[in-house]
Amino acid sequence: MASSSSGLTERKLIHVPSTDNHARFNLSPVPSVGDDDEDEDDAFDHQTRRDYPDIDQDDSGEEVDLGGNPLDTTTTVTMFDHDHEVTNASDRKNDNGQMTNVAYVVHKHYENFQTIDWLKDLMRNRIRHRNLRAQRRQSWRKRLAFWFDAWSGWICVLLVGISAGLVAGFVDVGAKWMSHWRTGVCTPAFWLNREQCCWGSRDVTFDDVHNELCSSWQTWSAIFGMDELLVSAWFFRYFMFIFWSVIYATFIVILVVGSAPYASGSGIPEIKTILSGFIMYGYLGKWTFLIKSIGMIFATSAGLIVGKEGPFVHISCCCGNLFSKLFPKYGNNEARKREILSAAAATGVSVAFGAPIGGILFSLEEISYYFPYKTLWRTFLCCMIGALVVRIINPYGNGHEIQFPVEYNVPWAIFEVIPFIGLGALGGLWGTLFIKTNIRWLKYKKTSRIGQYPRAEVIILTLITAIICYPNNYLRLTMPELIRRLVGQCHVEDHMDLCDYQRDKPIGTATAKLYAAFAGPGLHRAIWQLFWALIVQVILIIFTIGIKVPSGLIVPSISIGAIAGRLIGIITEQIAFQNQHLAILRRECGVSNEHCVTPGLYAVVGACAFLGGVSRMTVSLVVIMSEVTGGLSYIVPLMISALTAKWVGDAFGEGIYEENVKLSGYPYLENRESFRFTLKAGEAIRANRSGEPIPLACIYQDGMTIAQIDLLVRRHPHSIYPVVISEDFPCIVGQVQRRDLLAVLKSRKTQLTFTHTKPLLNRKVSVVSMSNLLNKSGQPSTLGMRRASIALQASKTLQLHKLVDRAPILVTDQTPMEAVIDMFRKLGCRQIFVTKNGHLQGILTRKDIIRLMHEANVSDKFER
Amino acid sequence: MASSSSGLTERKLIHVPSTDNHARFNLSPVPSVGDDDEDEDDAFDHQTRRDYPDIDQDDSGEEVDLGGNPLDTTTTVTMFDHDHEVTNASDRKNDNGQMTNVAYVVHKHYENFQTIDWLKDLMRNRIRHRNLRAQRRQSWRKRLAFWFDAWSGWICVLLVGISAGLVAGFVDVGAKWMSHWRTGVCTPAFWLNREQCCWGSRDVTFDDVHNELCSSWQTWSAIFGMDELLVSAWFFRYFMFIFWSVIYATFIVILVVGSAPYASGSGIPEIKTILSGFIMYGYLGKWTFLIKSIGMIFATSAGLIVGKEGPFVHISCCCGNLFSKLFPKYGNNEARKREILSAAAATGVSVAFGAPIGGILFSLEEISYYFPYKTLWRTFLCCMIGALVVRIINPYGNGHEIQFPVEYNVPWAIFEVIPFIGLGALGGLWGTLFIKTNIRWLKYKKTSRIGQYPRAEVIILTLITAIICYPNNYLRLTMPELIRRLVGQCHVEDHMDLCDYQRDKPIGTATAKLYAAFAGPGLHRAIWQLFWALIVQVILIIFTIGIKVPSGLIVPSISIGAIAGRLIGIITEQIAFQNQHLAILRRECGVSNEHCVTPGLYAVVGACAFLGGVSRMTVSLVVIMSEVTGGLSYIVPLMISALTAKWVGDAFGEGIYEENVKLSGYPYLENRESFRFTLKAGEAIRANRSGEPIPLACIYQDGMTIAQIDLLVRRHPHSIYPVVISEDFPCIVGQVQRRDLLAVLKSRKTQLTFTHTKPLLNRKVSVVSMSNLLNKSGQPSTLGMRRASIALQASKTLQLHKLVDRAPILVTDQTPMEAVIDMFRKLGCRQIFVTKNGHLQGILTRKDIIRLMHEANVSDKFER
Repeated sequence: MASSSSGLTERKLIHVPSTDNHARFNLSPVPSVGDDDEDEDDAFDHQTRRDYPDIDQDDSGEEVDLGGNPLDTTTTVTMFDHDHEVTNASDRKNDNGQMTNVAYVVHKHYENFQTIDWLKDLMRNRIRHRNLRAQRRQSWRKRLAFWFDAWSGWICVLLVGISAGLVAGFVDVGAKWMSHWRTGVCTPAFWLNREQCCWGSRDVTFDDVHNELCSSWQTWSAIFGMDELLVSAWFFRYFMFIFWSVIYATFIVILVVGSAPYASGSGIPEIKTILSGFIMYGYLGKWTFLIKSIGMIFATSAGLIVGKEGPFVHISCCCGNLFSKLFPKYGNNEARKREILSAAAATGVSVAFGAPIGGILFSLEEISYYFPYKTLWRTFLCCMIGALVVRIINPYGNGHEIQFPVEYNVPWAIFEVIPFIGLGALGGLWGTLFIKTNIRWLKYKKTSRIGQYPRAEVIILTLITAIICYPNNYLRLTMPELIRRLVGQCHVEDHMDLCDYQRDKPIGTATAKLYAAFAGPGLHRAIWQLFWALIVQVILIIFTIGIKVPSGLIVPSISIGAIAGRLIGIITEQIAFQNQHLAILRRECGVSNEHCVTPGLYAVVGACAFLGGVSRMTVSLVVIMSEVTGGLSYIVPLMISALTAKWVGDAFGEGIYEENVKLSGYPYLENRESFRFTLKAGEAIRANRSGEPIPLACIYQDGMTIAQIDLLVRRHPHSIYPVVISEDFPCIVGQVQRRDLLAVLKSRKTQLTFTHTKPLLNRKVSVVSMSNLLNKSGQPSTLGMRRASIALQASKTLQLHKLVDRAPILVTDQTPMEAVIDMFRKLGCRQIFVTKNGHLQGILTRKDIIRLMHEANVSDKFER
Repeated sequence: MASSSSGLTERKLIHVPSTDNHARFNLSPVPSVGDDDEDEDDAFDHQTRRDYPDIDQDDSGEEVDLGGNPLDTTTTVTMFDHDHEVTNASDRKNDNGQMTNVAYVVHKHYENFQTIDWLKDLMRNRIRHRNLRAQRRQSWRKRLAFWFDAWSGWICVLLVGISAGLVAGFVDVGAKWMSHWRTGVCTPAFWLNREQCCWGSRDVTFDDVHNELCSSWQTWSAIFGMDELLVSAWFFRYFMFIFWSVIYATFIVILVVGSAPYASGSGIPEIKTILSGFIMYGYLGKWTFLIKSIGMIFATSAGLIVGKEGPFVHISCCCGNLFSKLFPKYGNNEARKREILSAAAATGVSVAFGAPIGGILFSLEEISYYFPYKTLWRTFLCCMIGALVVRIINPYGNGHEIQFPVEYNVPWAIFEVIPFIGLGALGGLWGTLFIKTNIRWLKYKKTSRIGQYPRAEVIILTLITAIICYPNNYLRLTMPELIRRLVGQCHVEDHMDLCDYQRDKPIGTATAKLYAAFAGPGLHRAIWQLFWALIVQVILIIFTIGIKVPSGLIVPSISIGAIAGRLIGIITEQIAFQNQHLAILRRECGVSNEHCVTPGLYAVVGACAFLGGVSRMTVSLVVIMSEVTGGLSYIVPLMISALTAKWVGDAFGEGIYEENVKLSGYPYLENRESFRFTLKAGEAIRANRSGEPIPLACIYQDGMTIAQIDLLVRRHPHSIYPVVISEDFPCIVGQVQRRDLLAVLKSRKTQLTFTHTKPLLNRKVSVVSMSNLLNKSGQPSTLGMRRASIALQASKTLQLHKLVDRAPILVTDQTPMEAVIDMFRKLGCRQIFVTKNGHLQGILTRKDIIRLMHEANVSDKFER
């Protein structure tokens, strides 16, 4: 313990001259230079910073707390300048004026494509809150600031909920109108869609698929004065349908590819990655928000097999990001901001489907990474407000928040469990098939020439879709309309094909129950058309998901599942009707087959199964499906099919979101998978470093020359460097971030270049890698900064002890890797130091872990 | 680094003579002695262990992995026997035969009232799984064992689901029959309840509160031949009602107080604590299960203001515990067992209310501590199976899983948000009032003489309840019946008081809508009776919750809330009807006030608000309420009231479960609260150890004499001791458990006493604290164990290096306490070692943390 006790006296000696004021004075040049280095796509960000300068100053209080209590023994990392010939530690106390204390700066902003350090960010927030709390009795302004800060989370989610609800209502109304526009115009008032147009009419009739027909609504052929019944008129309508579809698609793909490439796709894999702590500046920016919102309307109206749930999640998260910038608590803290984003993601589902609880669970189960209890509660408010706003806008026109209402409430029979399980298995199989082919197609596109023409791809796909879909009555409907028809029950007044049964029993009142009967010719026709629709959708969706327009997967999955479910439901119904003498059927269904086998229920269950096969959700899926259909009596059938779908699907591979994350190569540390590591932390480090036999890059607390640190930083481009006591005695003291060191080094060099006093550092010309930083950052402008920089430059010794974060996460080398991974997952740290008997052995970063897990997976598959 | 490099050579020398076989040979005496020490109330446990001896042997494989890889450098803690004069470490390699290698034993079982070590338990499970996996290709039996192990989780939850469903069905049917028995008998078949009895009859009429009346069902006065209309007959019925109530209560309270004290109360606070890692043997045992199941029937039938949800959670958890013993993966691993228990807790809610999703969320939000993704999915299956079984048993007789069906589907108007918020606030206030008075009453009972007569308390309370409740029509109903009436909508054929409106409009068909109207005399009567019922229930529940019978809180809260809601609903309805000319009402409600203000909906919302005020649940509450009523259209009103209730309630204090946990003083580390610590880990240790100035109890790896370790163990009764390199160089190497050391010491001493060779240890007579252990543990019986013990006794040197767990959790002394608490919460460890520059500074245990948090809370309140 000899060296440590001598270190104690040394530290004490060093500490005397450095006062806190001095340190704070030196604060300014470092962050200003550091901040300018960052690639920030978000202009908004800078503006906010201007709005809240006082709060920014508040943050400097953090430096004291994290950097080291003055009463404490201080860990010192000193940089000497060899040209000044400072050789001995005990000498240093004399050159008081020439020693500059560089303060520890807590970085608020990360560089793009970095992962955040949850622990530090949350800590920073707590310190910030504590400071505000401590100051709140000083004046009423401080008190106001404290209360504003305490309530800002609630206010923020309130705003997010309202805005997400408004956007959803707008998109819903717009998409419906534009979809109907492809087939015709409401002549009295062109801004009404077909449904609204016929509300006022008295002569409403319905066609084979229950579309309203009335005199106010005129098809394009009628407007151009053609005879409706002519073949040429049909072809003209066909042409107009294709024409408008292509126009819509062209418009949006040009907008997306040209202005906001981030607006394409569903966005859920990216949101997942962002919520797990990844930084993607601009992904949640205002342009993405704007273009994705418009894009949603155009993409769904163009008749593409795309849904709106994923994009709504993305849009809501954009709202969350934009509003969180109004609140320094969230805008300046990436970890806290993710709480708002989690709530926003939930609200996306809530407003897309009118499923607030489903949204919460979706966020909890599928997307979120860090979901503390307080967030759950705020998410609750956010979802509620969103649903309330949608309810007030009333886009579905039925006065409920329910999108695909299931009006029936007939009980289901126990024997129906068998077809439900069958549907679940089918859903799982389809999910697997879709994921495999879609991922293969996306991979192929990446390498082939098709990927170079995203605009042409979308336009051609829209053309094909429109050409195929128009002749089929069911495909011509928008997907929500189709699903609504499929999940509904037949009423007596319905004359659509799906309800064409050979009924001979007299039917009384309008609400009397319909008894089962043989299928009529209309139903046979409907079955074949639906079967064709199923095949078309199954094939088209593989090529559609992944194109450069906003495109969600949930509504198409529901649609395909509902078609398959309805088909199987009709078949089951007919079998049950023809075998109603069987004991089991008689007991369950009553004498007249009265309430037995509702085909609409099968459509709901099928939708759940197919969606489950793709997304592998469980609880949230069942809740979303119940909320979307309002059919709470059918929780158990939904659970059965979801469970089967997940089991079957998981036997063949992972869900679409996980596969997409892998395809894009995001550094997402899977929260769920368990791995069969037999490694210990020490072995993992040895395995990691087998390629590079160079010793670990450390900083010694006894003191290093600027030259040494400069060399270290250049040789080992790690993001973090451990600080140890000495080379012989590598007991860990703390960690220093590369960016801090770079900032100090650069600030010194810039100043030297600027003032031209004397070329102290010969090495500065050799720092090639830093030249772009030097070019980008402006010279210090204000007087205070210049004075600080001069102090920095003039001093022979730089004390970096305030740069050292002395709370690194440690494990021993004998810790099993499972425990280490648990720590990464649950604590959200970026790196863990591995020690052996107190001595530093190596560093494991989050990326090491992801790589190790990937390797373990690969070898595991190989083993099988 | 001088000492560590010399340690390296030393370690290598020591490692050579110790082979693994030798170590394994020595394994047997240690656990057998250790196991017998434990206070295990569960007889079941021992039985299971006998059933699965082969699996137990499998566990010995863990020792190799955790204890240290033979290829690794080995950390050694050696005990010398000074009588043998072993002084030098380098000498030791020579006395090969006299050195015994004591193996590391992973303890499967904890002592009662201990907290478990999640990390170690989970690690143990992974190693176990890996061993099974590695061995699975050796033979088909191993393969079978592997598959059985892999599927055992699913099989276990399946069994739990089925059994919980069966119990729930049994309790529901039984409770209904016994409740009705208090008022009369079904003369043709006494085993039918009133509802079933009147199903077959043709002359069914209904009384004021919609009870069936038919000739088959005879009241007690009729059976005893009295004239039904006489006052004396009424008093006779009154007497019989009280008589049966008291009989039921007496029976159950004697059973509970005499045989299963753990069966009283709701059990949710205890389940919460158990799930957070606390050990309470017997709390989930088979007697508790049996008596609580029966007790549920009797307690609810006795007319007490108690519900069945909490007890069902407890009963399900008992099922989970009992079934998990069939599966070594769960039965022998407390951490994994808690996964089954989490699923079981969810199933409890699922079967109690037919709310599978609500159950999952309840478990997730309210009860569970460790809820990995895989558990979510198993919970899903478990809840589904439970709901399915209840559905097949069909105890509610309506063919659905829904208990309080809401048949109406009328939209709600935006202006109704105001009364909903009012109901929420009322719920929050009532919740606060109830919690405060109930907790105060329970505290008073603990100290006063009332607490000494639990049987008399229950009997007197039942008497009072029965006397008060019988004269009121609504209170005479069982609570579920009352709730069903309150949440329902009035139909045309209803002639109960609640539906008595002055309707003069002609009403057409049976299903036509009822228009709003002025209240009739029946409704006025109902209002006053309900108001009285509300007051009675509000007062009685304060004294009822906490008595020594199984008693849940949820159904009473729903009942009180539903009464309050219905009252407010009727008032709002009348106000709206009398002011229907107002523009806002006209626009929202239509011309004839057609679908405006449904009083039943207010009852649902009120139930949600009052339940939220007591339990402070959010998402799970809304889902449970939607599932229980089947009213998915009313998610947003439910959310509004739940949120308001929680806000209002939280302003005044905590929820009932948290308060109960605190009242009972369980070591529950709250997962939600955030604390405003300014401490760092090093300061916390200094604060902790200010009372005891003695140095930290450490074991040195260089070697200690048996006398030293014996002294250490006696002087410092910690549960764990750190192992450091040496006194001068306290770099942490690992940790040793006290129980392991005790077992080794004791095993040696027992053997010495037994064989009477020579009294090596003079200190053994002084070990007073261990005398009871010595008395309890039997002498080694089998030949192998005896041989092993002789080897242990004969050796001069005991190598304990396999007792050392070399993967302790470390933090630096500069780590803020918030981060340390996060680690305790998220990693679930029992203690954390605090180091400074690699040197051990102190230990923080879970109990230190709970105490610190408590102190911080107290000072925080004081500060306010």
